[in-house]
Amino acid sequence: MIKVVIIGSGSVAQHLIVAFRNAQKQENTVDLIQVFSRKKEKLWHLIDSTKVINEYDELLDADLYIIAVSDNSILEVTENLTFKNRLVVHTSGSFPIDELNDSNRRGVFYPLQTFSKNRGVDFRLVPICLESENATDYQILNRVAKSISNSVFAINSNQRKALHVAAVFVNNFTNYLYQIGNEICEQHQVPFEILKPLITETAQKIMVLSPLEAQTGPAKRCDSVTIESHEAFLKDENHLEIYKILTQAIQDNGKKL
Amino acid sequence: MIKVVIIGSGSVAQHLIVAFRNAQKQENTVDLIQVFSRKKEKLWHLIDSTKVINEYDELLDADLYIIAVSDNSILEVTENLTFKNRLVVHTSGSFPIDELNDSNRRGVFYPLQTFSKNRGVDFRLVPICLESENATDYQILNRVAKSISNSVFAINSNQRKALHVAAVFVNNFTNYLYQIGNEICEQHQVPFEILKPLITETAQKIMVLSPLEAQTGPAKRCDSVTIESHEAFLKDENHLEIYKILTQAIQDNGKKL
Repeated sequence: MIKVVIIGSGSVAQHLIVAFRNAQKQENTVDLIQVFSRKKEKLWHLIDSTKVINEYDELLDADLYIIAVSDNSILEVTENLTFKNRLVVHTSGSFPIDELNDSNRRGVFYPLQTFSKNRGVDFRLVPICLESENATDYQILNRVAKSISNSVFAINSNQRKALHVAAVFVNNFTNYLYQIGNEICEQHQVPFEILKPLITETAQKIMVLSPLEAQTGPAKRCDSVTIESHEAFLKDENHLEIYKILTQAIQDNGKKL
Repeated sequence: MIKVVIIGSGSVAQHLIVAFRNAQKQENTVDLIQVFSRKKEKLWHLIDSTKVINEYDELLDADLYIIAVSDNSILEVTENLTFKNRLVVHTSGSFPIDELNDSNRRGVFYPLQTFSKNRGVDFRLVPICLESENATDYQILNRVAKSISNSVFAINSNQRKALHVAAVFVNNFTNYLYQIGNEICEQHQVPFEILKPLITETAQKIMVLSPLEAQTGPAKRCDSVTIESHEAFLKDENHLEIYKILTQAIQDNGKKL
């Protein structure tokens, strides 16, 4: 059994706790022996309260420490670790491996998904991106990751940064386009509900077609009559600017083919 | 039985043919008596070939004619109709009802979904937006629409235009953000597959949370360290411009709250 400690109590930490708990019901690869949380009671609904600690000197000896805290707090956590030469990883998409404190063996355990506290996630479908400084540590990370997910990848820090930036486009920015769609509906007293099946199908299409193949719409068709009529319709300056820039980008992209 | 004729042979026409065929197996509301297609053989895999015509003077007497052709061709089709005072509707998101030829009773039958030719759609989930000039015609459209979809709405031309513009944001522009994500992955030799569960979850979240509640990411958090590092990372001018504009828009939006 690989003994694992999680440090942190936010969304990622909580989803990891649930994922390890579910995995332990199926197989005996990983034993989640402890979780560090400044506010211990925050995790009592998820794990046996005797396993939750809030003092660094209570940390037990483990094979793997997973730091699941915000990027700003990662260094602070590593500086509080009093032991040496153990395997310590973080869960961040953008924090480079070589900026971790080097008194321990360093690595990355990055689950690429958007986690909301009150929303369950099937962790077996969440891609986990792993990085380590040596092959032995990679084997440990790989076994732990595979105990909770079917989708495990070796990804170096530069690739991970690319993924993190790409994730901002397909997740945060996409959600903001949903927000604009919602605002346009509200301005014209149309229920946003009507757009939801289209949102679902747009995402599902991409599972079988490349985004280039899936691209449709007035910009792709260079349908200047519709584009001009949409631009005249948009009264919100911010919506109009984004409409123009993305329309132009899709048209330029079409010309590259 | 309401006798329906479809004019057109593209994606929307083909999906409507399949939807009516499936509906006819369940109930006897609608009888699809004819389809007009310039190339008759294009539809033989979908419908009894004797029902496919390619001459306007072969059009039978029907209760409803659905023109499912590109916006540019709608007027040309209506000018070729030799009968008068029958119910004639189009399926376009942006064509105003009062620009249709007024020798027939006018209406709109707009299914709001992205249709690809080789991809099945569960039409019962597709919202259909209806508009007519009088209540009697609306009842006909409503019965026909409800025979194929669970999701039917009365939407006037101005609201329909708002939906069409909003659909460009949540469908065409969102797909283009997927395309940028794909390009970033390719530039850094990372499989785009890794992002697919995130794309799915981003769309699914919006079914239960408003886009405002679902917004996450460095722009929402005003995390300037991450934003600057992403901007430095993006070498493609086009990607960088879109990153900056959407980041700024999300930050401005946050301030409005």
